[in-house]
Amino acid sequence: MRLATIRTPDGTRAARLTSEGYVELGAPDVGALLEREDWSGYSAETAGPVHPSGTELAPVVPRPGKIVCVGLNYRTHILEMGRDLPAHPTLFAKFADALIGPRDAVQLAPESSTVDWEAELAVVIGKTVRRATDDDAAAAIAGFTVLNDVTMRDWQYRTTEWLQGKTFEGTTPIGPVLVTPDELPGGVRPALAISCSVGGEVLQKADTSDLVFAPVDLVRYVSTIMTLRPGDVIATGTPGGVGHARKPPRYLAAGDRLVTEIAGIGRLDNPVQAG
Amino acid sequence: MRLATIRTPDGTRAARLTSEGYVELGAPDVGALLEREDWSGYSAETAGPVHPSGTELAPVVPRPGKIVCVGLNYRTHILEMGRDLPAHPTLFAKFADALIGPRDAVQLAPESSTVDWEAELAVVIGKTVRRATDDDAAAAIAGFTVLNDVTMRDWQYRTTEWLQGKTFEGTTPIGPVLVTPDELPGGVRPALAISCSVGGEVLQKADTSDLVFAPVDLVRYVSTIMTLRPGDVIATGTPGGVGHARKPPRYLAAGDRLVTEIAGIGRLDNPVQAG
Repeated sequence: MRLATIRTPDGTRAARLTSEGYVELGAPDVGALLEREDWSGYSAETAGPVHPSGTELAPVVPRPGKIVCVGLNYRTHILEMGRDLPAHPTLFAKFADALIGPRDAVQLAPESSTVDWEAELAVVIGKTVRRATDDDAAAAIAGFTVLNDVTMRDWQYRTTEWLQGKTFEGTTPIGPVLVTPDELPGGVRPALAISCSVGGEVLQKADTSDLVFAPVDLVRYVSTIMTLRPGDVIATGTPGGVGHARKPPRYLAAGDRLVTEIAGIGRLDNPVQAG
Repeated sequence: MRLATIRTPDGTRAARLTSEGYVELGAPDVGALLEREDWSGYSAETAGPVHPSGTELAPVVPRPGKIVCVGLNYRTHILEMGRDLPAHPTLFAKFADALIGPRDAVQLAPESSTVDWEAELAVVIGKTVRRATDDDAAAAIAGFTVLNDVTMRDWQYRTTEWLQGKTFEGTTPIGPVLVTPDELPGGVRPALAISCSVGGEVLQKADTSDLVFAPVDLVRYVSTIMTLRPGDVIATGTPGGVGHARKPPRYLAAGDRLVTEIAGIGRLDNPVQAG
């Protein structure tokens, strides 16, 4: 099943994507939909008004209660940088104000001149869990989506804590759809090609099976610290190929087109503009 | 004016603290109250049912949209450690699930053996601002409260990013009241004695006028990154005297009583118990 949050003249609506288009599901967005205990069966069976496939999309979960991001999580990339594999995931936060829809413009803040891309697989939680076992964690995953953890490198490295470079308003596209694990090769440990391109040039290319801490591991780990709730998002980290690590470094500029894609889920296609 | 979120048999209520007790204000909590544009005049004039002064208190803002925390911000403490004063504030996040009321028990997670205290002055936002000037920032401060940024040191230092040690569920007391700047010496740059004691022994003692980045500076800085909204909280950092820096180190244990106090605002008085 593929779920989206569409924009209508009356506000956002949760919808199921079918061959006919987006079928409304009677909830204001996918976050609210996931709060129903029966969201899976309900979403499969409900059939409201249908919108054409070109309908505008909002962030798939517009206001997650928590967005937990993971750093340094692609095995190949860590090893090629000569580092040891980490014993624990590096976690940092992003606030919901950072999110934009899958076709919205990434706003370049005038305060940063080093805005970089980070293509990521994101986990969306569908069930309340705390101190999850592996089985609990797997069952708590509603599905997966695409996120680009767009980062202001200058602000990220002003101090040791990355938050301020990670949560600039209107910079993080998420979507286009949430895809349930049953539709993906690998299920809750999806093995999917992930890529990021700028202006048609592919700059990141990896496979999500290369994650050191897989989605189930991350749900388990984060749930030790706090309760995960429906609509919470975990962004699982980015592979090599970011602009900051290139020689010479390369950053996003007004007029660029940032495309982030995960095979089997979909594509974010965001123009970049001066904010 | 002093505002609190009280617990009643019918759920939480925003209230004004007067000599008669807590006067209900017709909003479910102080966060919701601050969303009214006229919250200040409204709160001063409204008079609902009155509850006695011993009424149970919830976190003064139970579910802030954002909790932004500041590290390394007391001048004297930074200089005594032989460090330079920072050019930029160190920012990290905490999620709302971490918050507890001013008399609630701090839950010691079985996964950590190094749970430490950090007494802090917290700013509560009362007005939506982005890219605030100093005047905008001052006007956006609804008031101040007390927060203890209780930290799992072992988890904080598992990686470079502190989040995972900072946001364990049910560990961060906040309250007891929000006090508006007009009631405090120093106004929006309050000069107040702050202290933390464990089992009656004073372990932290400083003055909030010693902050490197004062409340107005922090509101201005954070609002460059993202819109601050009513009910958002900025925890301004802790002075010297934390348990981790003591020789030998000292941490919270079940049965301890953690008291965090700011003169002119009030006191958090939290038992510590095994979670």
